[in-house]
Amino acid sequence: MKNQITNAISDFFFEYETPRQVLVRNRRVGVVCRIIQLGVLAYIIGWVFIYEKGYQSTDIAVGSVFTKMKGVGYTSINGSERVWDVADYVFPSQGDASFVVMTNYIITEGQKMGKCPELHGKHNCSSNADCEGGSFKRTGHGQMTGECVKETKTCQVLAWCPVEDDLVIPDPPMLMSAENYTLFIKNSVTFPLFGVSRSNLVEGIDAGYISKCLYHPENAPLCPIFRLGDIVKLSGFNFETIATVGGAIGVVVDWTCNFDVAVTHCKPKYAFHGLYGNPTETDKARASVGYNFRYAKHYMEDSIPKRTLLKVFGIRFDIIVQSLARKFDIIPTLTAIGSGVGIFGVATVVCDLVLLYLLPKRAFYKNMKFKYTDTHAQK
Amino acid sequence: MKNQITNAISDFFFEYETPRQVLVRNRRVGVVCRIIQLGVLAYIIGWVFIYEKGYQSTDIAVGSVFTKMKGVGYTSINGSERVWDVADYVFPSQGDASFVVMTNYIITEGQKMGKCPELHGKHNCSSNADCEGGSFKRTGHGQMTGECVKETKTCQVLAWCPVEDDLVIPDPPMLMSAENYTLFIKNSVTFPLFGVSRSNLVEGIDAGYISKCLYHPENAPLCPIFRLGDIVKLSGFNFETIATVGGAIGVVVDWTCNFDVAVTHCKPKYAFHGLYGNPTETDKARASVGYNFRYAKHYMEDSIPKRTLLKVFGIRFDIIVQSLARKFDIIPTLTAIGSGVGIFGVATVVCDLVLLYLLPKRAFYKNMKFKYTDTHAQK
Amino acid sequence: MKNQITNAISDFFFEYETPRQVLVRNRRVGVVCRIIQLGVLAYIIGWVFIYEKGYQSTDIAVGSVFTKMKGVGYTSINGSERVWDVADYVFPSQGDASFVVMTNYIITEGQKMGKCPELHGKHNCSSNADCEGGSFKRTGHGQMTGECVKETKTCQVLAWCPVEDDLVIPDPPMLMSAENYTLFIKNSVTFPLFGVSRSNLVEGIDAGYISKCLYHPENAPLCPIFRLGDIVKLSGFNFETIATVGGAIGVVVDWTCNFDVAVTHCKPKYAFHGLYGNPTETDKARASVGYNFRYAKHYMEDSIPKRTLLKVFGIRFDIIVQSLARKFDIIPTLTAIGSGVGIFGVATVVCDLVLLYLLPKRAFYKNMKFKYTDTHAQK
Repeated sequence: MKNQITNAISDFFFEYETPRQVLVRNRRVGVVCRIIQLGVLAYIIGWVFIYEKGYQSTDIAVGSVFTKMKGVGYTSINGSERVWDVADYVFPSQGDASFVVMTNYIITEGQKMGKCPELHGKHNCSSNADCEGGSFKRTGHGQMTGECVKETKTCQVLAWCPVEDDLVIPDPPMLMSAENYTLFIKNSVTFPLFGVSRSNLVEGIDAGYISKCLYHPENAPLCPIFRLGDIVKLSGFNFETIATVGGAIGVVVDWTCNFDVAVTHCKPKYAFHGLYGNPTETDKARASVGYNFRYAKHYMEDSIPKRTLLKVFGIRFDIIVQSLARKFDIIPTLTAIGSGVGIFGVATVVCDLVLLYLLPKRAFYKNMKFKYTDTHAQK
Repeated sequence: MKNQITNAISDFFFEYETPRQVLVRNRRVGVVCRIIQLGVLAYIIGWVFIYEKGYQSTDIAVGSVFTKMKGVGYTSINGSERVWDVADYVFPSQGDASFVVMTNYIITEGQKMGKCPELHGKHNCSSNADCEGGSFKRTGHGQMTGECVKETKTCQVLAWCPVEDDLVIPDPPMLMSAENYTLFIKNSVTFPLFGVSRSNLVEGIDAGYISKCLYHPENAPLCPIFRLGDIVKLSGFNFETIATVGGAIGVVVDWTCNFDVAVTHCKPKYAFHGLYGNPTETDKARASVGYNFRYAKHYMEDSIPKRTLLKVFGIRFDIIVQSLARKFDIIPTLTAIGSGVGIFGVATVVCDLVLLYLLPKRAFYKNMKFKYTDTHAQK
Repeated sequence: MKNQITNAISDFFFEYETPRQVLVRNRRVGVVCRIIQLGVLAYIIGWVFIYEKGYQSTDIAVGSVFTKMKGVGYTSINGSERVWDVADYVFPSQGDASFVVMTNYIITEGQKMGKCPELHGKHNCSSNADCEGGSFKRTGHGQMTGECVKETKTCQVLAWCPVEDDLVIPDPPMLMSAENYTLFIKNSVTFPLFGVSRSNLVEGIDAGYISKCLYHPENAPLCPIFRLGDIVKLSGFNFETIATVGGAIGVVVDWTCNFDVAVTHCKPKYAFHGLYGNPTETDKARASVGYNFRYAKHYMEDSIPKRTLLKVFGIRFDIIVQSLARKFDIIPTLTAIGSGVGIFGVATVVCDLVLLYLLPKRAFYKNMKFKYTDTHAQK
């Protein structure tokens, strides 16, 4: 018995099965089949391996972005000159990946809580009956008191008074000088699967270079300092338009890297595109042109809380990190080879169909290929 | 020699190998094998291709979100009426994807730097010995001076005085009117692999529609304007509870798209779910119910810096963009076919095992299938 | 005719093809081939299935992060003592995933709009000709008036006056006490493909535990409360250095989960690493050491708008959620098996090459394996 098992094992190891083949000497079939097989081979090598890099596994990065604006704006309104620095025109101030640069504004100074008539066009009324006391309108500024103010023909509201008048947007924008502000982007990414960390301050981008460079698509594609006017232009916007009503621009930092070559070749590419507010887009975008929000500076005057309300029109920048790294990996390589061999099998099946069903001598080939067991009768 | 190579090449092209097969005429084996093969075929076509769409490659989007709140709140405390507008109750003000709407608050007005007793319950003391001068407590309001205040039986601290008393949370919440605020979401996504950009203001959602629509799961599933009360309800919360202690709600914008059909069919779906603070959840969530943070408005009074401290309870909204786009791609198609053919091979192996080891006439079949080379003796 | 079709169908179901094989009894070839085949089998089972878990599909999470700082800082400058609480040192205040803790600052109090000389070192001049009126410098504080101030030998600018003097950074940092602040992280993640939601307050991390625990890599790896000094240390920084000039630290919450086991085993791992500003890094990082931003508190004094400008140096924390969940899935399982069978086919091809081209008795084996159709002449 033990001998039998030993024999079976030694048989298993010393034997080897290989399929018996018919070698069909037929030019037509031969050529067709070889072409199909070569096509499959070319597809596997050329397309899967070389073009689509099927021998690599992929990973996307986790990253962190820090931004810093520089530049000073200047306005002169009715002879009152003032400048706007970073602490005044960037929201939020701490250098987030998504921030707004104010380019235009409607200022309402010295608001305090009180009762005043609504803005003309909202809550119009002819008598007190039109102003239901205690109710709100979604787009109104406050709570109606129930009184209709004769001078303005609008309902009186409890609100921060005087109410903001935003019917006319300043044009040209107050802060056209924003065009010359500069944006500095620091971005570091980590590909967890490959254990690689990169920063957009790549090799060669040192403190000396940064202090004097300015991004340019061709001449300085790695300089992380961008002129706002350039970004807006590269996104296809007109600066004055976007500065007037506001808009949103995506700054894409693209990390498409191949880690089969040296890591130092992994460098970011910057791209810019409008997110909303593009006045040249189709109807659906125009449904909501512009970008604005309200911002209040609170203060105390004569023990009365007051505020300065700013309706800020600005350019919102979203720094979007997009990444795709590839590296040789044995699993996708063998999966690609394995499934390629499978497709080779399909090629053989196709050729067999030609051989056995389409050729004139098909009966002959069938006979060559198949051997019949004449045991049909048995159950 | 050259002739030989030419011959070899012509042989290669004009010949074609096909495996020789045994055609086993056995009902039992035949039926079993055909069923296995048909099962594999059904799996490949039905499951991999139709159900799992294995012929498509997938991509996730990079996107950008902008939000805007509308609505006015009203409070009346001890006869002092005031309204709260967007600039007062949204943090941060610039319309981020993640923001907080204040629904309740504890206000501490006129704080200035000084020495005052700690809040009762923190730093309780009976004598100066209990208050170590110069030290802090992690949850305290300031630095201990080393003195025990007899009146309050708490340590004196150097802090913004008077210290905030947050032992009692106002209930019902101060700003129940938040239920009627509306949230407008603008979201644009880009699928970099397929080069497709979409906005949640899809075809048909124009300025006219937006000005009067309100999101409803069935009647207006594409309207990007949401009533806060509706969002809270759809997330399974009770508005008054969440407004009192605060909470966090995720608004998922789901872009599950199939780009094999027209791009206009790619529309967002909105879903709402609580992130923390759900009082109906299990113990672990209850470990940290509520959402609050402190916010200070600084001002100068009689040349002394003062501040108004707000402990803000609110609903935090996280607009979460979730995306999965699919499109026909030749690589996954052929990988699926190739590995399907491989599984076909497994089916054949299973049938062979039945044929060669289980059937009564297995010796006969073995003889049919195999041809032995009698060269065992050689090394 | 109908009979013929019925016959064909019954033939198809009652027949079964299996390839005819040559069983080569040759020890050398047998051993080589069996080893290759066993190697392929071991690769498929060991590597693809056990090591790389090729039978599972993967998913990444969408999540939401909320943070809360606790602790009080203290400064004493020229005898003027003050404390800094959460509302003073965290930017932004509402508990975002990315925030800054102020550790050092340069304060410029009582700035108002006016004309004053630039900071020494910027816009140096010897005569009015050096100061072009109406122009800006990118790194300057305001708009030049065209006048050169003799006392400071710098150009006069229209700016918030007096201009900030940030030439000397306070060292040691003003708020070394930041080391003892604590950070509380709430993080919830959802794996949309598997429909699983998890929170970092996992089983066992309840309110009682949170109230007294402090994160420690070995003793308390699940406690979501972190001491700032510990985080900085675990990221490999020196606290005093990073507190002086600022820096950025990534707190990675790693959700690597296997949903084939109980969901309760899916627990977060915390990791800490510097993002920029690491003074021990290579040149490229040093290109931009530190992290700072400017922040203004506005107030009104004698009806003149004034501001207190803070140049904030701080540690920026980015809570980065990294996730990879795996679960058994029939598609990748069968794809792996299928392509494994394909690779088996490659093994057979390799053995055949040995058998037919390298062995001395190759002619014999060739004859055994192939059967020739002598129909070369036909077209």
